[in-house]
Amino acid sequence: MLTDLRIDDTRLLQRLDDLACHGAREDGGVSRLALTDADKAGRDQVVAWMRRLGLDVTIDAIGNIHGTRRGRSDGPPVMTGSHIDTVATGGLYDGNLGGLAGLEVIEVLNAARLETTRPVAVGFFTNEEGARFAPDMMGSGVHQGSMDLEACLAAVDVNGATVEAELARIGFAGDTPCGNFRAAAFFELHIEQGPVLEREGITIGAVTGVQGISWTELVLSGQSNHAGTTPMGLRRDPMVPAAQIAVFVRDMSDRLGGSQVGTVGALTASPNLVNVVPASVTMTVDLRNTDEDLLQEAERRLAGHLDRLAADEGVDIETRVLARFEPVTFDPDVIGLVAEVARDLGHDVRRLPSGAGHDAQMLARVCPTGMVFVPSVGGISHNPAEHTDPVDITAGADVLLRTLVQLATIDSEKSES
Amino acid sequence: MLTDLRIDDTRLLQRLDDLACHGAREDGGVSRLALTDADKAGRDQVVAWMRRLGLDVTIDAIGNIHGTRRGRSDGPPVMTGSHIDTVATGGLYDGNLGGLAGLEVIEVLNAARLETTRPVAVGFFTNEEGARFAPDMMGSGVHQGSMDLEACLAAVDVNGATVEAELARIGFAGDTPCGNFRAAAFFELHIEQGPVLEREGITIGAVTGVQGISWTELVLSGQSNHAGTTPMGLRRDPMVPAAQIAVFVRDMSDRLGGSQVGTVGALTASPNLVNVVPASVTMTVDLRNTDEDLLQEAERRLAGHLDRLAADEGVDIETRVLARFEPVTFDPDVIGLVAEVARDLGHDVRRLPSGAGHDAQMLARVCPTGMVFVPSVGGISHNPAEHTDPVDITAGADVLLRTLVQLATIDSEKSES
Repeated sequence: MLTDLRIDDTRLLQRLDDLACHGAREDGGVSRLALTDADKAGRDQVVAWMRRLGLDVTIDAIGNIHGTRRGRSDGPPVMTGSHIDTVATGGLYDGNLGGLAGLEVIEVLNAARLETTRPVAVGFFTNEEGARFAPDMMGSGVHQGSMDLEACLAAVDVNGATVEAELARIGFAGDTPCGNFRAAAFFELHIEQGPVLEREGITIGAVTGVQGISWTELVLSGQSNHAGTTPMGLRRDPMVPAAQIAVFVRDMSDRLGGSQVGTVGALTASPNLVNVVPASVTMTVDLRNTDEDLLQEAERRLAGHLDRLAADEGVDIETRVLARFEPVTFDPDVIGLVAEVARDLGHDVRRLPSGAGHDAQMLARVCPTGMVFVPSVGGISHNPAEHTDPVDITAGADVLLRTLVQLATIDSEKSES
Repeated sequence: MLTDLRIDDTRLLQRLDDLACHGAREDGGVSRLALTDADKAGRDQVVAWMRRLGLDVTIDAIGNIHGTRRGRSDGPPVMTGSHIDTVATGGLYDGNLGGLAGLEVIEVLNAARLETTRPVAVGFFTNEEGARFAPDMMGSGVHQGSMDLEACLAAVDVNGATVEAELARIGFAGDTPCGNFRAAAFFELHIEQGPVLEREGITIGAVTGVQGISWTELVLSGQSNHAGTTPMGLRRDPMVPAAQIAVFVRDMSDRLGGSQVGTVGALTASPNLVNVVPASVTMTVDLRNTDEDLLQEAERRLAGHLDRLAADEGVDIETRVLARFEPVTFDPDVIGLVAEVARDLGHDVRRLPSGAGHDAQMLARVCPTGMVFVPSVGGISHNPAEHTDPVDITAGADVLLRTLVQLATIDSEKSES
């Protein structure tokens, strides 16, 4: 019975451990920045696994690795995948789980000698994190067509190395044109990276979309002075409005409610000395909402607050957009399929948006797309302590397997043994 | 007439320029951290000038340089002085003006061939700034007796060098016991380092005392999380209470009024990334008041606010005292004398407290002490752009000259020429 198909959790967990050797940190985490030697070693491992599984492997011009298992038809594949680049202080699961669960699905199909109507493809996209080269989601963005290949190849890291040179150096400047195929559908299994599923005791998240993201850098300039000799009334201290902005961002996000979140994660004062009124403060504001209108409302309220503060406090406030992505909504049929499959497998399901960006949001523009979330212990991610319970990993991979199988429209069971 | 005595502004300004060559920065400022090669060069220059002026020069065990012009009596000298060490981004006037104006007073006395009853001494104290070795006001503190010589000699800089070793290296580990004399009175001419005199168009500040200083470091610890995936209600974000503290410090200082000032000059978030709720924030609070009771009231209000915030925001707040000095009040007779002399010379005078620490506050514990302030352009100090108008420098040095002469009780005019 096709419904008896299950992934082999031992094999999947072993692959997660094996891949974590490349860029392993002493604290148990992983540092595998895009296009580094560690990334090359991880990529070589992935390609070797794909070849052992009998997949047709292609590398495209931005370094995306695609492995395809042929179907009876030559039509577009049903696709899964993710990325294996990590942040410098990364864990074992972010990205890696999605790609390796895809290979595990292929293992199961091969072991069962199942021939699908549609091909099944697994993609490993280049530089999803953007931790070394901006922008993030580079490989899936170029594949899908919204990012320019030449511009992305010209991106430089802090040492001046380009994506193009680093791809060539590690042997992943492929000759396949980017975006030379469109998938029939795309599914990505990923850890939630947030606390919601764990807090609610739910195993499977049927992801409804990805929050819109608005990142702004603010530079507040006042007048640096001696902290002892400058009366309060004669100050133009940029720290005070900077602090008021941080409080405002939290309070406004609370008031807007719903999916709205707002964060001041970075704040740097200059000269940053105990006894000097700062000359300037540079800070970031991260606003996210699943609804574009509400995200724009949050941006408007912040802008209005900045205008009032600049006038009240006698400081200059310059703003610069660091990133702006509109919310992405996944295909309702695909969301429904994920939820239905998960329930059939006996799991509790919750529909929820993704607060983080993922390759799936790029694919969503060109094919029906969905994501499967599994719980993150403590909501912790981008951290060596990132962890997901093996039971949950197995559950998520089984949902991925069943969903892919269903969409690949298996219409025959061959049993040659 | 003694009242015709005037300092030579050209000579004094030239000495300020000459001394600024030692540790000169390309931006026109001075970097002459205590006991560096630049400090040695400056000290050698000062000692050479003192010897040319016929002063008896002694170097004590903490490196203080004292030059004494003999009087008819062997009693305690009337003393002036300051320091020549600077912060790394210092200017030409902080400290240097006080010491070099003292040498200019000696020049005038010598040129007029005046014999005073009391000796007149000029002191250059070691490490007033504390920018390389803590604590600050080290030389005057050891001289006056409140700081322990051995402890100060053992102080280390960031590279592990000790005060003792550096004094020996630059040839200023003197053999005179520290504090082997007490002055009859001490006067220090200094730039205001604040904006009050300039804003009010006043030339001379008769300093009433030095504000008490309370420096606290706060470490706020919360829970680091992904800024996109963590709902507002599940956060323990230390940036929000840190910001509330910065706003509170300003508002509380405004409400307390009087001489109260409060500053959050340093704030560092970790990991300080746009898309990560910080794990921790380290910040400083600088509170100052001329009244000890009011300074304690400000400290109590801050502590109460911290307790409420820690409970409301679910963060831990650890506090550490970085520095605590009680306010110092200068001798009323000396303050009155400075004001009277300045008015006699035709200057507008304002009594005001010092917001910054000075060697004079150490001396105030053992002898009648006062300070003369001259305006700082824009209130800027500890900055290469630090500037005081030559007219104001001349005015301040003339007030110093006249005050010293009056206290040294000149009782004869010799005119040998």
